[in-house]
Amino acid sequence: MTRDHITDTYKKIQDEITQALERLDGKAKFQEEIWEREGGGGGRTRIIQGGNLLEKGGVNFSAVHGTLPAPIKKAFGVDEDQFFATGVSIVLHPNHPLVPIIHMNIRYFELNEQLRWFGGGIDLTPHYVYPQDATYFHQALKDTCDKYHPNFYGEFKAWADRYFYIKHRDETRGIGGIFYDRLTPEKTGLSYEEIFDFSCDLGRTFAPVYIELANRHRDELFTQAQKDWQLIRRGRYVEFNLVYDAGTKFGLETNGRIESILMSLPSQANWAYDYKAIPGSAEEKTLSLLKQGIDWV
Amino acid sequence: MTRDHITDTYKKIQDEITQALERLDGKAKFQEEIWEREGGGGGRTRIIQGGNLLEKGGVNFSAVHGTLPAPIKKAFGVDEDQFFATGVSIVLHPNHPLVPIIHMNIRYFELNEQLRWFGGGIDLTPHYVYPQDATYFHQALKDTCDKYHPNFYGEFKAWADRYFYIKHRDETRGIGGIFYDRLTPEKTGLSYEEIFDFSCDLGRTFAPVYIELANRHRDELFTQAQKDWQLIRRGRYVEFNLVYDAGTKFGLETNGRIESILMSLPSQANWAYDYKAIPGSAEEKTLSLLKQGIDWV
Repeated sequence: MTRDHITDTYKKIQDEITQALERLDGKAKFQEEIWEREGGGGGRTRIIQGGNLLEKGGVNFSAVHGTLPAPIKKAFGVDEDQFFATGVSIVLHPNHPLVPIIHMNIRYFELNEQLRWFGGGIDLTPHYVYPQDATYFHQALKDTCDKYHPNFYGEFKAWADRYFYIKHRDETRGIGGIFYDRLTPEKTGLSYEEIFDFSCDLGRTFAPVYIELANRHRDELFTQAQKDWQLIRRGRYVEFNLVYDAGTKFGLETNGRIESILMSLPSQANWAYDYKAIPGSAEEKTLSLLKQGIDWV
Repeated sequence: MTRDHITDTYKKIQDEITQALERLDGKAKFQEEIWEREGGGGGRTRIIQGGNLLEKGGVNFSAVHGTLPAPIKKAFGVDEDQFFATGVSIVLHPNHPLVPIIHMNIRYFELNEQLRWFGGGIDLTPHYVYPQDATYFHQALKDTCDKYHPNFYGEFKAWADRYFYIKHRDETRGIGGIFYDRLTPEKTGLSYEEIFDFSCDLGRTFAPVYIELANRHRDELFTQAQKDWQLIRRGRYVEFNLVYDAGTKFGLETNGRIESILMSLPSQANWAYDYKAIPGSAEEKTLSLLKQGIDWV
């Protein structure tokens, strides 16, 4: 399991996903931007905008290395400072309010060529929560997890519930999914190769699952009221990403590539003062399901 | 200078401003919400939405007291924990892209009835920077400052430049204004009464200055491209408020009244991947003026 092998495989996964998403969209193509990092390494940012379905999204690959900034060393609780990091990171905002927002990340991190770990996850943010979709989504993640470790799904699902939480609203960002970090053989009983395989398998779970969810709803008619609600939900997505998301904070604090980091923001988001869902409405039902600890499987 | 006198005067300033802004708008009226804080005190939130000119804004008064949460004590570097705070806080988002966003705050803070200080400021965020408007705005602030202390304008202008800065974009939120905090007789050579008078005078500078700026542009025709730019600029405003603004962070971390805190967010904000202003355009000119240290007077 060399750096090069991980890097090449993650690049291949980026290719597979962008091809699958272009087929799903049927109109828009990803615009690629190759960039280099001053301190070492670089990436392939791929952005899609104004599609039939995909209003704005990014499927980004990067492989960067260099010296870890002091505050990050402190946050990580480590003394080593030569790092290597590679990963694929995705956020998709569909134009259709009945199709969910989705986020995925798989990443590998190395410190001084000694400490090594994997992190990542997939989580779903439906503007309207359909319990059957939520179950399908979580079951797909569980199936992938179960191939590698009987505890992965349960632990990583709970981690996602804790992580994707908008504290000041007391609501989760969406219906969660899985989130994991710092996976090592020591912690999992798996080899590095097996953990790497798990991350690739998760990366390859992404496209078929999102395509299925999108196709379930993309041809449904929707109302202006549903569109308005979508924009309000996107406002909450912006709040989470700018106030809480560790990846975003890390990027902003380390002078990361701003446009790649903030590709997670939607093309449009709205805020209304003291929005209250109508009792008994689909919006209220959705809010009641944006809670930690719901067992969808 | 009793608490009651400060509270009553700040309430009166809220009244004066909301009345002046309703006259300016000509259509929308402020909706008032009276709220009480669990730990002590409360406020009058006044929100305006969907006006002729004012698309979304708030003019909020609050007077709260209680026990300071431990993290805030730490941030303030104090041992005392019985606090009293009162103030008026304003953000206005106009619908017209040639009329600026404005923010004002005047506040008084007390700890254990011993430590006492004033803070506040006014700053302007034009979607398009007009140098003559910027000069008018800064001159008006300077005129108010100069009545109280020859150093106020220069020091508080520099403070605003440092504070209203979007680090990850390397741009200021707008053209600044003044910002000050923890003003005491010790630091200023003024009495508490004089500092209080300064804060009230600043509060009363707000409405006439904003009305003048709004009237200069509200009847101008604008293009869709200017409207699009306005929405992008609002995206930057959201980034500043959620990532950097100390008042917002303080509010979110202390379980403040979320809807009052986040009234600063616009009804709509947009993000475009890697937006680039056309060389020579008014948008590029504006970006070139969103820098620290410009002397407008």
